[in-house]
Amino acid sequence: LAAMEVPTGKRTGWQVQSSFLARHTHNMIRGIVESLKMKPNPEKPMIPLSIGDPTIFGNLKASDETMKAVLKAVEGAKFNGYAGSMGHDAARQAIAKYSAHQRPDMEISPNDVVITSGCSAALEMCILALADRGQNVLVPRPGFCLYKTLAEGMNIEIRYYDLLPDQEWRADLKQMESLIDENTAALLINNPGNPCGSVYDADHLKRMIDICERHYLPIIADEIYEHFVFPDVEYVAISSLTHEVPVLTCGGLTKRFLVPGWRTGWVIVHDRKQRLGDAVNGLKNLCGRILGSNTIVQGALPDILVKTPQSYFDGVIELLHSNALMAYRALKKVRGLNPVMPKGAMYMMIGISIEHFPALKDDVHFVQEMVNEQSVFCLPGSCFQCPNFIRIVLTVPAEMIEESCVRIAEFCELHYKKDTRAFIEHSTLLDGSVNF
Amino acid sequence: LAAMEVPTGKRTGWQVQSSFLARHTHNMIRGIVESLKMKPNPEKPMIPLSIGDPTIFGNLKASDETMKAVLKAVEGAKFNGYAGSMGHDAARQAIAKYSAHQRPDMEISPNDVVITSGCSAALEMCILALADRGQNVLVPRPGFCLYKTLAEGMNIEIRYYDLLPDQEWRADLKQMESLIDENTAALLINNPGNPCGSVYDADHLKRMIDICERHYLPIIADEIYEHFVFPDVEYVAISSLTHEVPVLTCGGLTKRFLVPGWRTGWVIVHDRKQRLGDAVNGLKNLCGRILGSNTIVQGALPDILVKTPQSYFDGVIELLHSNALMAYRALKKVRGLNPVMPKGAMYMMIGISIEHFPALKDDVHFVQEMVNEQSVFCLPGSCFQCPNFIRIVLTVPAEMIEESCVRIAEFCELHYKKDTRAFIEHSTLLDGSVNF
Ligand SMILES: Cc1ncc(COP(=O)(O)O)c(C=O)c1O
Ligand SMILES: Cc1ncc(COP(=O)(O)O)c(C=O)c1O
Repeated sequence: LAAMEVPTGKRTGWQVQSSFLARHTHNMIRGIVESLKMKPNPEKPMIPLSIGDPTIFGNLKASDETMKAVLKAVEGAKFNGYAGSMGHDAARQAIAKYSAHQRPDMEISPNDVVITSGCSAALEMCILALADRGQNVLVPRPGFCLYKTLAEGMNIEIRYYDLLPDQEWRADLKQMESLIDENTAALLINNPGNPCGSVYDADHLKRMIDICERHYLPIIADEIYEHFVFPDVEYVAISSLTHEVPVLTCGGLTKRFLVPGWRTGWVIVHDRKQRLGDAVNGLKNLCGRILGSNTIVQGALPDILVKTPQSYFDGVIELLHSNALMAYRALKKVRGLNPVMPKGAMYMMIGISIEHFPALKDDVHFVQEMVNEQSVFCLPGSCFQCPNFIRIVLTVPAEMIEESCVRIAEFCELHYKKDTRAFIEHSTLLDGSVNF
Repeated sequence: LAAMEVPTGKRTGWQVQSSFLARHTHNMIRGIVESLKMKPNPEKPMIPLSIGDPTIFGNLKASDETMKAVLKAVEGAKFNGYAGSMGHDAARQAIAKYSAHQRPDMEISPNDVVITSGCSAALEMCILALADRGQNVLVPRPGFCLYKTLAEGMNIEIRYYDLLPDQEWRADLKQMESLIDENTAALLINNPGNPCGSVYDADHLKRMIDICERHYLPIIADEIYEHFVFPDVEYVAISSLTHEVPVLTCGGLTKRFLVPGWRTGWVIVHDRKQRLGDAVNGLKNLCGRILGSNTIVQGALPDILVKTPQSYFDGVIELLHSNALMAYRALKKVRGLNPVMPKGAMYMMIGISIEHFPALKDDVHFVQEMVNEQSVFCLPGSCFQCPNFIRIVLTVPAEMIEESCVRIAEFCELHYKKDTRAFIEHSTLLDGSVNF
């Protein structure tokens, strides 16, 4: 009836729909975690080795210098107004200086720096500035799931290149190169890397650059963990190794300065031969959408970047490295587990020989049962497109690492079966006998 | 040569392109302003009546309570970590309470609140959650140009409904309704409004709601200037007037608390009859892209919203209202100008009878020459899709308003021609005589 009165081209009832973008913006980790049926063992206090926020346990804190700089910026009340859409000049200048290692032979201009709402917004801007619907971007597997979250809703295809656990998580370069076609808009690398704690040497990075040079492919470098490397490991900014290939480097205060909630990130445009063309303006256009990040922190940035002492960074690395060593040594001894010692960042991946745990279907099931029996919560590797691994964070207090390793070992011992094939055959026999 | 070695489907040279999104994300104001050939008169100090940042002149400041709340949040060092992607619970609770007027008969749940990086990001989320490429959104003309900036690059069409200067900038409802078709995803209203300083009464808002009800159209309400109304004017939240039509209300600290740089905004979802369906989840999905806004301000929000006294807001309104009156009275007397007295927000639109200024082509030219002769910089109405108007901001110190009105009057007197038609005929005759 109502429909008759309405001219064609009009709606006849409430049928609001979520946009394609909104429907296809997914956080894979949340999806998997919410599917878990978890009831932590009430007799054991929960140990969350899953939480990527390093500030949550109280053992890792922003430096006094960082906090003082922000106090000063608030007290001066000079940083309440709008900044330019790319950020305050002084802050961009400070970031350019702080990032000199990314372009050692030539000064970085503040004009090459865009301040963003966290490294997440930096990555969003770079991906969306370079890739159109129907195009594709190469990202690492295992890798940080935000890349997919950002691309999929925009109809940008994600193609995974593999990181090899038995080669210190170096990329499978052959497979990487085979993924490239005329619709590939960028190669995204994450170094140092989440979730593997991988750190690439100059040689490996140069091989990636060679591939990009051969295929005229710009690089998006997620270096949010820059400088976050364990003793005797060197961090090399990929932008420092090439004049030919344009690199958009994404960084921020989040990890190194331990202030993830402040949402202060940045993009540094390295385009020595002006090969990005119009895309640099495109990137800057995108700044006009949400007008950047909090100005108090921008006001504090010059002090934060200059005054935080090396000893502060060293202390954080020491804590992470010692946790990594402790966990690695303890878990290496556990049957059915294959921890891969990280070289930096904040995480360790642990392989599971799932065939030795017949009661556990896969990494997701493994994680679920370990919560239910031992109250230890790791993230399944599936969250990072990497089944049969689990990821632990190294930012927790040492006691937690120690205690969780004991419990993980107990869990594995309980479920480990030496020769799974034999076990299966035996049970098959049993089944056969039941079935007459 | 090189091309021969490369298999098909591979690129043969550097040809990086900006994405469609990046190419089509424009700030119209910047575009127009950059096209101006401006050389301020060196004998007169510049008066920028163009700048939308109310904090820039020093006469309008954040309240002591606001600044203290942030200091406290920094000092406690409890707000450095990640918040949930929708924001901290306590902050969302505080926003829900603060926004009770938007839904007077029923409590707003913190679950209806999403904290964003400024009101800009709130608007982006709402538009992108509801509208797909090929769909359209109705927005006001004159209106804030960000709506277009956000939509166009996503291939979402903007359709303008007119605000009528001789009807206190009320919307032309008939024309508005005629724009709606089956691809219309939402009606966006901005009340109180930029650039007009319009404030709508309940009756006018209800007529808009009726239209939306007839056409099953959700409303995006940009109420960043909520409560920002002059004495004896009432601000009514459109969400308070309907149970039928879903409303996404965008707000934030930016204007009322005078801290635009802090990038703290929010969306409040009013969907009494669950008509947004999946789009509410879609909106929340979008939070996962950049992970919201600065946590220090989120930590301070409960105090900011509760402790800032009414007297502070009253003081700001008083200053704006007195500036508005002063400018209105002075410019009303100027031949060729038609100021429209605003009812709220921070701006006034001034009509130009451009036919009386034969030396000046249009509002853009008018603005340019006023800078060059009088060092007074207003924004051309074209920045808001409204030619033959100029916009001035009311947030400058009173002396600046006074002085600029004198100069604007001088400028207009100099260029005003009483009977332009006669003038044109005369010059035509002259031309004819030159041409034998
Ligand atoms: C590899 C990687 N990139 C980017 C980010 C996001 O950083 P931000 O919190 O600054 O958005 C993270 C956070 O965990 C990360 O691990
Ligand atoms: C009508 C309107 N909406 C939204 C905004 C953006 O607010 P924010 O600075 O919080 O992003 C403005 C800023 O001028 C505005 O005038």
